[in-house]
Formats: sequence, structure tokens, C-alpha cells
Amino acid sequence: MANALVGQSGGPTGVINASLVGVVEEASKHTEIDNLYGAVHAVSGIVKGEFIDMKQLTIEELQAVAVSPSAALGSSRDKPDHAYCERILSQFKKHDIRYFYYIGGNDSANTCHIINTMAAEAGYELRAFHIPKTVDNDLLVTDHCPGYGTAGKFVACALMGDDLDNSALPGIKIDVIMGRHAGFLTGTAALAKQREDDGPHLIYIPERPVSMDSFLADIESVYKRLGRCVIAVSEGMCAEDGSTWAEKLAENAERDAHGNVQLSGTGALADFLSGQVKGRMGIKRVRADTFGYLQRSFAGLQSETDVDEARRCGREAVNYSLTAQSGSVAMKRLGNGPDYAVELFRTELANVAEKTKSVPNEFINAAGNGMTDAFVEYAKPLLGKLPKTIYLGTYPKA
Amino acid sequence: MANALVGQSGGPTGVINASLVGVVEEASKHTEIDNLYGAVHAVSGIVKGEFIDMKQLTIEELQAVAVSPSAALGSSRDKPDHAYCERILSQFKKHDIRYFYYIGGNDSANTCHIINTMAAEAGYELRAFHIPKTVDNDLLVTDHCPGYGTAGKFVACALMGDDLDNSALPGIKIDVIMGRHAGFLTGTAALAKQREDDGPHLIYIPERPVSMDSFLADIESVYKRLGRCVIAVSEGMCAEDGSTWAEKLAENAERDAHGNVQLSGTGALADFLSGQVKGRMGIKRVRADTFGYLQRSFAGLQSETDVDEARRCGREAVNYSLTAQSGSVAMKRLGNGPDYAVELFRTELANVAEKTKSVPNEFINAAGNGMTDAFVEYAKPLLGKLPKTIYLGTYPKA
Repeated sequence: MANALVGQSGGPTGVINASLVGVVEEASKHTEIDNLYGAVHAVSGIVKGEFIDMKQLTIEELQAVAVSPSAALGSSRDKPDHAYCERILSQFKKHDIRYFYYIGGNDSANTCHIINTMAAEAGYELRAFHIPKTVDNDLLVTDHCPGYGTAGKFVACALMGDDLDNSALPGIKIDVIMGRHAGFLTGTAALAKQREDDGPHLIYIPERPVSMDSFLADIESVYKRLGRCVIAVSEGMCAEDGSTWAEKLAENAERDAHGNVQLSGTGALADFLSGQVKGRMGIKRVRADTFGYLQRSFAGLQSETDVDEARRCGREAVNYSLTAQSGSVAMKRLGNGPDYAVELFRTELANVAEKTKSVPNEFINAAGNGMTDAFVEYAKPLLGKLPKTIYLGTYPKA
Repeated sequence: MANALVGQSGGPTGVINASLVGVVEEASKHTEIDNLYGAVHAVSGIVKGEFIDMKQLTIEELQAVAVSPSAALGSSRDKPDHAYCERILSQFKKHDIRYFYYIGGNDSANTCHIINTMAAEAGYELRAFHIPKTVDNDLLVTDHCPGYGTAGKFVACALMGDDLDNSALPGIKIDVIMGRHAGFLTGTAALAKQREDDGPHLIYIPERPVSMDSFLADIESVYKRLGRCVIAVSEGMCAEDGSTWAEKLAENAERDAHGNVQLSGTGALADFLSGQVKGRMGIKRVRADTFGYLQRSFAGLQSETDVDEARRCGREAVNYSLTAQSGSVAMKRLGNGPDYAVELFRTELANVAEKTKSVPNEFINAAGNGMTDAFVEYAKPLLGKLPKTIYLGTYPKA
């Protein structure tokens, strides 16, 4: 018997806690695992030995954890270097931790990988498993990532309502959505469309740089046809030279420890784009919203599919750790539409660590300003149940 | 037998369509009402005679309408003057419209009032009824307004998740919420608090002007105690001189036909406040979000209480119109907590038209930076069921 440790890292999601609960419920079934500790604030809590005894939590508390957005154990943006990882390993030894489950993105997979390698070199028996999470959906190997479907559901519901609002009071509406490099999340805006002329009418993702002239011409074309236009853009939307519009605007770009520029938590891009439309096109009713942190943290809105899969990923990480040395949990899609299902499998940490993927070409329309049916088929089951809404103003007149 | 007309005006809400469905279902029961027309884009559609035959809608369509945010018939920001109202009355005569139901805010009540007066002067038998809606909750007479509870639920869920996010990755978070004159909606942020140290830790509403020094000192005090701080501010938050911070920032303030400055749809206030905190306090992790139009238009999130009451208000407007000449539907609260219930009553249009109310003193704390228990008791039943969430990072360490 030995102890296990679970932690949550990076930007929280709506279901990272479902994965946590999956780890807790599976770990409690296996006698190989004695204590299960929860690391407070990820690696920064590990090096300080700040652990919670997860087996002390009541069923009621665990149920609340499973439906809570954000990371219930706290998160961290620290990127551990070699010295940092030595401190982690020293805490593992001190507390006889032999199983390590780390829920996070590609940086977290890398942290797992480094610690696992160090432990092997030191002859310390450790099993390190990465459990994927990210609203960006940009991890390799897995068909999709836990956290993506719930954030996508928020985006689709937001755009669905926003399009109705824009139908009622017509004009131009621009919505800025998370995603600095990958357009998967912004793409889910396409799931808001229920009928032919529904918005979003245009979708711009980082994979397809666009000039300001093309952007404005696209909007003008929709506006002339429908008298209104709803546009979804990624915060990482790029100009023709490949640099993001947001970076062009950020005078004092703030970078985190991973070298990422802070694009969320500011309305500058939305205001800039809306100013461009107003200024060049002379349309008065132009509005822009930046969805910001709500996309990953809104309480009370989860994709049922996403919750279920996130929990399964947590459970399987524990199962894999009983027979394998290390790995990352991944999902393989078995069918689409009504046949949608996934099976889980283990992949090597090195396959996931520090790598990212972009939206594939077949998911992006030829004009580079919208998503294809193939993308909609891919994303639809991940978002779970969406509301059915209606606008009557375009109905035949009496 | 005569015809009836229903319209929806002003900024849409999450339940203005529930009121519309209430009108349709009640009108279909009474033989006094022959055709029921829906005015497309409110008064601007009335003057053009753009009507939908509401009795042609299927039950399935009506069910979709009831759960759809925004105004299914389309809305308008037009403020009818005397000449405009004459054109409205002329359309009423042309289509033999004797019942007029108008769902909107205080401006819409005023439109009802003007048309009703003109009809009486012209000896044209008309019954004009106003059905209240506003996310701002600032109408007189009624205990609260349909639309408020659903927007409040969005705000509370957003703050609940945001506070968990801020617990996981501590720092300063500022959320800008709709409300240019009244702080009722921003106040619902207080409903996100489940435990003592939960955010939002500070709430600023237009009823209590605050200096930048006090604002920063308040934040600093919370930050010193908890290492983090979540702040909810109204878009109409005022400086000591009574002018809003947003107005101070708006170089080219855009005003609608009612003379209101556009405060939504821009991230400028949030970015300004976050810049102030960063600059003067030297705290790095400062984020700000502007909730924007999502507050009134997010699809798939309604307060059950609000939907039910909005629908009842629509039904009662029809009932009142069978016996009275004109009026506005209002609600009286009969109890609180588990005894919460309302009864509906008719009030004169003149009591509601063009007037607004502010958050009463007993709902605001002495420091002017938070809401009282009395406010929480007032708002809680209106928001319906809220999620129960949890953060474990502050639990006792193993």
C-alpha cells in the first residue's frame, strides 16, 4: 500500500472537478492506494506539502465538487523547472506518494513527464498520470478534451441568445471568444445556428489570418443581405502578417510564466473591432462583447457529455496507474450523431506534453470565415443538450 | 368581437417572450377577442401594419417562444411622438384593433398612456395595457419586474463561478454589470455568496457614488485579508461628483432616442478600473470582465419564478382588458422565503409611465460597498434555483 496525490493545474474549466471526483471515487475502490491527498494550488502546494485528505470529504461535498466550475483544489500557473521538480519529488518521498494524478493541459502533461523521468532516474517507484482538461481543445492524441464541451455549450448558448437579441434590435454584433492559438472554442459558435439565416454569420479563428479589409467586406456583405450581422472572433484572431490583433493592441502585454500573453480579461480587441466597423462602415448600432472568464467558469451550466467523460477520464487514470508506469488519458470517438460514444485509452506522456493542435482544414470553410458541416458534426455531441429557440419577426405577415 | 394587438418594446429580456405566450394563451380563451396580431418590431412595425397572426402559431412554436430569450416579435428603440402615435392609432382603426398589449419598460407604459389618451379624445374605443419587463427592475408600483430574476440568475451564476475561478487562481477580479441608474441587477451578485469569505467581496451600485480612493482602499483591505478580491460594479457606477465613470470615459457618447448613453457593449469601464488597480496597487493578476448583452439574452438559463410570473402578467393583462379601460400589470409580494408568492393587480398607466425607482436604502450596506440581508431576502426567490458549489482549497490541511 502507498499514497496517492491528485492536483489540478492551469486555467480551470467547468468539468475539471468532475475529473477530480472520478479520481476520488476510483481510488477509494482499490486497496493498493492508502491515502489520497489533494494538492492545494497544484505544484505550488505540493512543494509546501499543502495537502487535503480527500477521503475525509463527505458524499454531499463530493457531489457539490462535481458540479462546481473551476478547480476545487486551487490551481497554479507555475511552470516547474528542474529544481522545482526536485522539491516535488522530495515531498513525494516524504509522504510516500507513489501515484500522482495531474489534471491539466499540455504543460501539466509535461510536468508529469519531467517528474516521472526524475523519479525513474532516482530509482523512486512512481506512477504519474496526466488527465486532460482544456477549454481550448488543443491537446494531441485525444479526439477532444474534457472542459471543451462545457465551454462550447456556454459559447453556443451565448451566441444563440445574442443572435435573437440582434434579430430583435438589428445591427452589428461582435463577440470575442477565448482561444489564442486554436479556434475550436470559437468554432462552437456555429452550433448556435438553427436556421438558414441565423447568426453567427461570420466566424474568425486564429488558423485563418484575415485582413481588416476582408473582415469589413465580409460584414458589409451580410449586413446588406440581412440588415444585421453577428460575428464570432477568437481572441487570437490574426492579421495577414500572422500577429494577433490583440497583440498589436497590447501596449504593455502581460505574459505568464509560460510566455503566454494575457488576452482574456480585457475588452480592448472587441472595442477596437467595433470601432473599425463603426468608423469605416458608418453603421451606428455596433456592439461588441468579450465573453471573458465566464466561458470557463460560469456556474450551473455543464455539458452532460462533458461531465460524464471528464469523470471517466479521472477514473481511468486511476485504473491505468494500477498496471502501467505513466501515461495520459485520451479518448477515441466510436461514432457520431445518435451513435456518438467514446472509448478511453492510455497514451504516453511524451505524446501530449508541450504540444498543441490546431483546427484541421476540413473544419474550416473555404472563405476562412466560418465552420464546415464536418465541424458541426464533430462538436455537436460534445456540447450536450442545447435549447431550442425561435424568432418570429421574419414569419409571413398577416 | 374585435381584434387585439401585442407588441414587445425596448431592451429584450430572458422572459419577455413568456409574457407574450401568456397573452396568446389567455386571448385564445375569450370570445371577445377575434384576431390576435403580433406587431413586428413594436411601434415601428405597427405604423407599417407589419403584423403576424399569432393564432397561426403551433403549440410547438409557442413552447419554443416561451423558452427563447429576446423579443420573438422583434423590438424597437423608437420613442413615439404625437405624430407617430397618430399613425399608430390610424393602423388600429384600419385593422379594428380594440385591445392593445404592450410588453416593455416605463417608456412603453408611456406609449400606452399616450395612445390610450389619444384614442379616448378621438372617441375610439381602445383598451391599452402595459405588461412590465426590465432587467433593471426599476419600475414603480410593482414589487419587482419580470425579466429581473432571470438576468439576476445569470449574474449570480456568473459571480459564483468567477469567485471559484478567483479562488483557484487568486488575484483581483472586477465584473461590470448592467444598470445605468439602478443597482438592482448588480446587487444580485450578492446571491453568489454561499459562505463567509466568498465573493463578491465588494459591490458598487449607482445609488452610492464612490471616489477612486475609496474604491481602491476597499479592494486593498479585502486583498490584504484574503489574498484575493472579487468586485461587482454597475456600468452606471458614479464618482463623487455624481457623473458616471463610464461617461467620463466615453469620448463620443452614443445616445439612443430616449437620451440614454450607451454603456453596454464596451469594455472601456472594466479596462479602466482594472488599470487603476494595477497602476496604483502594484498587483499583477488583475482581470476585468464586462458581462454585456449575455445578461439579458443568454439562451437556456431562466429563473423558473421569473418565467412563471412573466407568463401570468401576460395572461392577467388580457383578463384586465376585458373589464377595465387601461392599466399596467403589477405584482404584490405576499410572503418571503418558503412563503414567497405574489398576487397580481392592475395599476394606472400614469403610475408607471416614465418613472423609475432606485434601490432603497435598507438594501444597501452602511459603507455603500455591499448589499444587506434584507436585499438578499428580497432578491433570492426571484432568481429561482441556484447551483450549490464548493471550493476545497481553504479546507484544513492533512
